[in-house]
Amino acid sequence: MNSLTLLRKLEDGSLPEAVRVAADSERSAAEELAAAILAGHVVMPASSAGRKVRPTAIGKGMRTKVNANIGSSSEAVSADDEAGKLKAAVSAGADAVMDLSSGGDLVAIRDRLLASCDLPFGTVPIYEAASSARERTGSVVDMEREDLFAVVQAHADAGVDFMTIHAGLSRAALEELSAEGRLMDVVSRGGAFMIAWMLHHDRENPFLDDFDWLLEILAGSDVTLSLGDGLRPGCIADATDRAQVHELMTLGRLGRRAREAGVQVMIEGPGHVPLQDIEINVRMAKELTGDAPFYVLGPLVTDVAPGYDHITAAIGGAVAGAAGADFLCYVTAAEHLGLPGTEDVRTGVIASRIAAHAADVAKGVAGAADWDRQMALARKSLDWEAQINLAIDPQTARSVYREKSSEGVEGCSMCGELCAMKIVSDHLGIKAGEISGC
Amino acid sequence: MNSLTLLRKLEDGSLPEAVRVAADSERSAAEELAAAILAGHVVMPASSAGRKVRPTAIGKGMRTKVNANIGSSSEAVSADDEAGKLKAAVSAGADAVMDLSSGGDLVAIRDRLLASCDLPFGTVPIYEAASSARERTGSVVDMEREDLFAVVQAHADAGVDFMTIHAGLSRAALEELSAEGRLMDVVSRGGAFMIAWMLHHDRENPFLDDFDWLLEILAGSDVTLSLGDGLRPGCIADATDRAQVHELMTLGRLGRRAREAGVQVMIEGPGHVPLQDIEINVRMAKELTGDAPFYVLGPLVTDVAPGYDHITAAIGGAVAGAAGADFLCYVTAAEHLGLPGTEDVRTGVIASRIAAHAADVAKGVAGAADWDRQMALARKSLDWEAQINLAIDPQTARSVYREKSSEGVEGCSMCGELCAMKIVSDHLGIKAGEISGC
Repeated sequence: MNSLTLLRKLEDGSLPEAVRVAADSERSAAEELAAAILAGHVVMPASSAGRKVRPTAIGKGMRTKVNANIGSSSEAVSADDEAGKLKAAVSAGADAVMDLSSGGDLVAIRDRLLASCDLPFGTVPIYEAASSARERTGSVVDMEREDLFAVVQAHADAGVDFMTIHAGLSRAALEELSAEGRLMDVVSRGGAFMIAWMLHHDRENPFLDDFDWLLEILAGSDVTLSLGDGLRPGCIADATDRAQVHELMTLGRLGRRAREAGVQVMIEGPGHVPLQDIEINVRMAKELTGDAPFYVLGPLVTDVAPGYDHITAAIGGAVAGAAGADFLCYVTAAEHLGLPGTEDVRTGVIASRIAAHAADVAKGVAGAADWDRQMALARKSLDWEAQINLAIDPQTARSVYREKSSEGVEGCSMCGELCAMKIVSDHLGIKAGEISGC
Repeated sequence: MNSLTLLRKLEDGSLPEAVRVAADSERSAAEELAAAILAGHVVMPASSAGRKVRPTAIGKGMRTKVNANIGSSSEAVSADDEAGKLKAAVSAGADAVMDLSSGGDLVAIRDRLLASCDLPFGTVPIYEAASSARERTGSVVDMEREDLFAVVQAHADAGVDFMTIHAGLSRAALEELSAEGRLMDVVSRGGAFMIAWMLHHDRENPFLDDFDWLLEILAGSDVTLSLGDGLRPGCIADATDRAQVHELMTLGRLGRRAREAGVQVMIEGPGHVPLQDIEINVRMAKELTGDAPFYVLGPLVTDVAPGYDHITAAIGGAVAGAAGADFLCYVTAAEHLGLPGTEDVRTGVIASRIAAHAADVAKGVAGAADWDRQMALARKSLDWEAQINLAIDPQTARSVYREKSSEGVEGCSMCGELCAMKIVSDHLGIKAGEISGC
């Protein structure tokens, strides 16, 4: 090992500066945050191998965080494009970024993104393993167990802060899948690679089989393990089935082993979930994983809105966050249709931040409702500059306002001089005693 | 009276064709729908004075409906623009439209819109009354009680199908408002006019005082009464206070009187409501109004996202709908910044329809989940044409797909040849027996 992991340092009683900084930004006490990390309820992904990472606490009691997935595909390979998406995600206020590249020179793209990113940076190493195998032999499954671990080691050495590993995708879970009879089977790309490998080689999942080896690699650079849900539902009809829950139970068990090995761990969840099942999904995940940080993809509350999945995800993400999900992976408007562009990334982050903030208000996260209160005061006083500066996306608010506003009108450009607030305040000027609260 | 209202016809045991048509479209029995209308749980707004209206049932057990507000302001007066917005709303799939015009020749704009609209068409007569008063004398409050009723009569004669009337805004409710101490007081434009009038003239609300006169006018053309919530909260901090609940209780009482007079009635609700309070707001409204159809504006789950209020409203609308709200008034991306344009209208309707559909899946509305199921099957078979045709907005889905897609690639343009579904299906070709469900 290069050095002690954060968990080991906290066990030893030290309180690293990053924990203090994160606690401050959460309006929490450093000692409380340290205790939550030790309990496995909060993670702070930050590799010990690489660059300096913005201290970011993800989990119970913390502000709900937002992740933006970027990355090339075999049909769209441009490191410049990905760098542009990273910039868009950061400036839109993402809390973390994952590079899901699967086309082009994956190492070069990843290293370039890593070098310019001070947010926690995640990857899914099996994408690179599968892509390499495909390039070498034409088949994504044509690789040895050792090749899989070698890619994880390479990502750890490169300074990746958190990695999605589908270690809970066991042969027993596949049997549940087989017995279940799903509409859409498997839609997780990493999960599909893993299953293809398992079936082709007729072997158990190597990351499950040799979980200790995986933990050793991760602990070496203090990489946070994000336990992937390879059997997450791909449509709302498949949500919350036995295959999904079987894998989740394995993830909970593995999470405990990870923490015992000094590796921070979070749990990934769905995906596509109808609105009425989101709360039970979140609460079940929390129960079955010892309150580990829960990282959801969306979830999307309907399958029928391609072109608008940032909105279906915002609905699901808000409800999931309010029920206890800690980390929302955005979904962009391009989902189910193509690779997102820079503008999709920007809008996706904002939509997901809206969901996260609505959830934080609902959960009573410290300071969350104050922001809304400030906006209400700015609206009441018709202070447009303050409203724009307080907006979750000041740039968009300003441009819409400029486009719509008329010069010299009291009240706003929406109702013009028939502004409700202006009318009431004018008339309360006459009879102010009547409604003292106004 | 011109003829019997729908309620009176149903009381007399007849079953109008429109009820049969609406029941068919809801996959319900006509007799059941008739019983629900008689019980006051469902309304079918359709004036007897005017044109033919698409039979539209709003209420318990029905598909959640979406309303689009359009209309001029004193700063943006163009009948052509409003006609364009109406067209956009209809083609995006709105179930109803309200003309909230407050600038220009209000009668001409309304009549032009009415003539080209086969959806239930609503207005807020007090806007016209206040605008006329302002034009005549410079003050929105400079009108007699009779002037208010005269405008309602004119709208009824013109064939308006439903009208928002803030009849529950009593002096007693204002005292609650006064005692409460809100951040934002009153943000309902109609509510503000009413309050200004009440304070200026030192009188009770005429629509409350002379509610029977109002009902007589409405019954004359079978106008559905939409009881407005003039004290709806204007920011999440003000939600669910005593002023709001006081008015709601009055609305419930008035709703009962309306039905007794043969007038169909729905109840309007907020507005700005934090996520954790939406369900109690909906359930309280249903309890206090005898399960009358509940018509919400959004609700917006946060105040901090100007430029994205179609998304904050979609979050709130989905949760409200799932809890029992029957009718969602869209909110556009321009809300709080300016008057919506045609594209804002289109996107606003789609966002609200996504919320309504997510709610319908959650409520188990007949046929709702089938749509998602069809989409899942189209995705599984990588049938792009079917996916696009099944999309809630096929036009947008097609244009995003075309922009992103690459020629000759199996799988989709998002993951290219590393499509999870393709990988699993390829490998199940080898070992199909292993996962029989796939």
